[in-house]
Amino acid sequence: MNIKAHTAEALSKLREMSPLVHNITNYVVMNSSANILYAVGASPVMAHSLSEVEEMTGIAGALVLNIGTLERKWVEAMILAGKTANRKNIPIILDPVGSGATSFRTDTVKRILKECRVSVLRGNASEVFSLLEPGAGARGVDSQLQFNETHIETAKAMGRDLGCVVAISGETDCITDGSSVYRVANGHPMMTKITGLGCGLSAVTAAFCAVAGSSEPEKLTSCVAQAFGFYGLCGQLAAQQSKGPGSFETAFIDTLYSAGSPEIDRLLDVATV
Amino acid sequence: MNIKAHTAEALSKLREMSPLVHNITNYVVMNSSANILYAVGASPVMAHSLSEVEEMTGIAGALVLNIGTLERKWVEAMILAGKTANRKNIPIILDPVGSGATSFRTDTVKRILKECRVSVLRGNASEVFSLLEPGAGARGVDSQLQFNETHIETAKAMGRDLGCVVAISGETDCITDGSSVYRVANGHPMMTKITGLGCGLSAVTAAFCAVAGSSEPEKLTSCVAQAFGFYGLCGQLAAQQSKGPGSFETAFIDTLYSAGSPEIDRLLDVATV
Amino acid sequence: MNIKAHTAEALSKLREMSPLVHNITNYVVMNSSANILYAVGASPVMAHSLSEVEEMTGIAGALVLNIGTLERKWVEAMILAGKTANRKNIPIILDPVGSGATSFRTDTVKRILKECRVSVLRGNASEVFSLLEPGAGARGVDSQLQFNETHIETAKAMGRDLGCVVAISGETDCITDGSSVYRVANGHPMMTKITGLGCGLSAVTAAFCAVAGSSEPEKLTSCVAQAFGFYGLCGQLAAQQSKGPGSFETAFIDTLYSAGSPEIDRLLDVATV
Repeated sequence: MNIKAHTAEALSKLREMSPLVHNITNYVVMNSSANILYAVGASPVMAHSLSEVEEMTGIAGALVLNIGTLERKWVEAMILAGKTANRKNIPIILDPVGSGATSFRTDTVKRILKECRVSVLRGNASEVFSLLEPGAGARGVDSQLQFNETHIETAKAMGRDLGCVVAISGETDCITDGSSVYRVANGHPMMTKITGLGCGLSAVTAAFCAVAGSSEPEKLTSCVAQAFGFYGLCGQLAAQQSKGPGSFETAFIDTLYSAGSPEIDRLLDVATV
Repeated sequence: MNIKAHTAEALSKLREMSPLVHNITNYVVMNSSANILYAVGASPVMAHSLSEVEEMTGIAGALVLNIGTLERKWVEAMILAGKTANRKNIPIILDPVGSGATSFRTDTVKRILKECRVSVLRGNASEVFSLLEPGAGARGVDSQLQFNETHIETAKAMGRDLGCVVAISGETDCITDGSSVYRVANGHPMMTKITGLGCGLSAVTAAFCAVAGSSEPEKLTSCVAQAFGFYGLCGQLAAQQSKGPGSFETAFIDTLYSAGSPEIDRLLDVATV
Repeated sequence: MNIKAHTAEALSKLREMSPLVHNITNYVVMNSSANILYAVGASPVMAHSLSEVEEMTGIAGALVLNIGTLERKWVEAMILAGKTANRKNIPIILDPVGSGATSFRTDTVKRILKECRVSVLRGNASEVFSLLEPGAGARGVDSQLQFNETHIETAKAMGRDLGCVVAISGETDCITDGSSVYRVANGHPMMTKITGLGCGLSAVTAAFCAVAGSSEPEKLTSCVAQAFGFYGLCGQLAAQQSKGPGSFETAFIDTLYSAGSPEIDRLLDVATV
């Protein structure tokens, strides 16, 4: 079975199982991440209080930790939810929003990676490489860094060191666990003109991982690549129907909801390197 | 005057008076609840700090307490605003989002019901029945429980015990104060594919109740049924114009803004049981 | 060069430079303000923790302080960010959402104006005049006060006293630094039927000011008027394409993204008084 068939099967399973995805995420994208998860077929829940994150993660199929609009007490809740996810053996997807822009964010990402077993680290090149020694990466919120060939080896080394899948969004996405590497050529520039589409991809990745139900690195890496490919092709289809970022966002949600096997067959552009 | 004429009149009065609805609600739906209230003709305000909730409730026509994305200090603000609403004799609509999913949420709903005189408790079947003895209801965030005939007696008993209108959203909605019972057959499955439409219904119910200006249980119950019926028929009309949840949400806001007497005459499906 | 040419040039420079706008803003509009900033060509970032606001303002080109959904600790973060902006000499745009509705909000606006050097105070007439002696202004969240001829002198006096540009949104907008006065006749009533469009205007004003890079009062006042005019004409164009507030919001974002020199030439209605 090839990657297209695997993706179609994963999506179909996701829609059948409708996994509960627990999000501890930023204020800006709570609404859009919930709608993106519903559209793709998952069931979102947002909860961040120390009084309830353990119970909420306890009934979820995956956990998203997203550090946008961060506060100190949210970090504690993320760590507590993360430890619960680890005990339950459900995947954690970590989105290092704005890592590199402030030391509070960079330090928080490092702390979460140290205290919790993260399955997938998903961000843009600036954010992901900000975790390396200062100077190795760029600084910023929107990516200041164009991902390129020479970064693949760095990403692989990070995947090995962190023991997780490193998934870097960009014009071409790069997904690696340190051993296998996937390249995803789906996506559209309009996706960077709306807030929260990167965060939404982390949420959709969580939904795919919840359904895959595997912690084998190779399967997990493939599963992340499938999520990226499907999400990106929905962006391409939505861009064809839109006149600007407003109508694009509407069409994108519609497409996440309606696209399936035929669109995957026609457009998915995922390959191992 | 029949229920259709009453609904048209209530809507027209709402648009004329544009009541201020004070919302202490969750982060996910703050934007959508505000837009839903504007669209239906009300004036929304969101405020949750202990430093200002008394003053804000003091100038409002109704209060919405919604426990999604809950935090401990928000509970104190809800209680303080609730007591202010009670002193002013304006209606409180309580939305028990995710009650049953965590004990923090279930306990908070019980505490609010104990410390404040709530006018309307509006949720899905899982949420509402989670307030009964453990085991009597289901657990979850999206409803895990299909409301059915046998639940009507339970809902009536809750209405009597709590001394408020119990309004349960589902494929068919059930609204009761313990004595009279309304069934609302309006609505569309697409309404569950977008986040915040249940919360938005609580807000619209608050706007209708603010205008009704009555605490007679029978009139209040009818008023809630009218809000449910109008909201649901707007969902039906929006679904006809949409290709998925994204375009549905846009069309729903447009319809809440433009629908009136003719649509109510044609589509309202509310009846006493 | 006339005001139309200046506006087209400012917009073009904004899209070229894509200034980073740091927003400490309310929960209701975080998503919409981010999308509005992206659409107009700027780069938004939202951050409010005392642990990072100094660093974030440190890399930004302008700072928005918006007091909706206010909390005590957010006020401290606003002051800290404001002092950083002053040290860096980047413009602060202050949006007094709901000032006059509660004393917490009115007092906070006064405190920020006292402790930070604000470049632009942008609100509706109720909000702005609530800062004068009690009784001088109206109270409310949506504007209860229709701005009129007699208010121009009051606005000018405020501009002189506060040492900032006072920018009042209404059917006709009035922008003054105490000396020159601009009147902007762009805009559309549908802009008041969606939440967050006032807050979005504050954000867009910040983006224009970031690019103008001038603290000369006269240039700053003209720059604010240009932002108001462009924003308002996008509202007029969007209203022509919409059936209600839902489709209006979508069309508005599309128009902010696509409108440029031809639309400005045809529709901009800004004049000195």
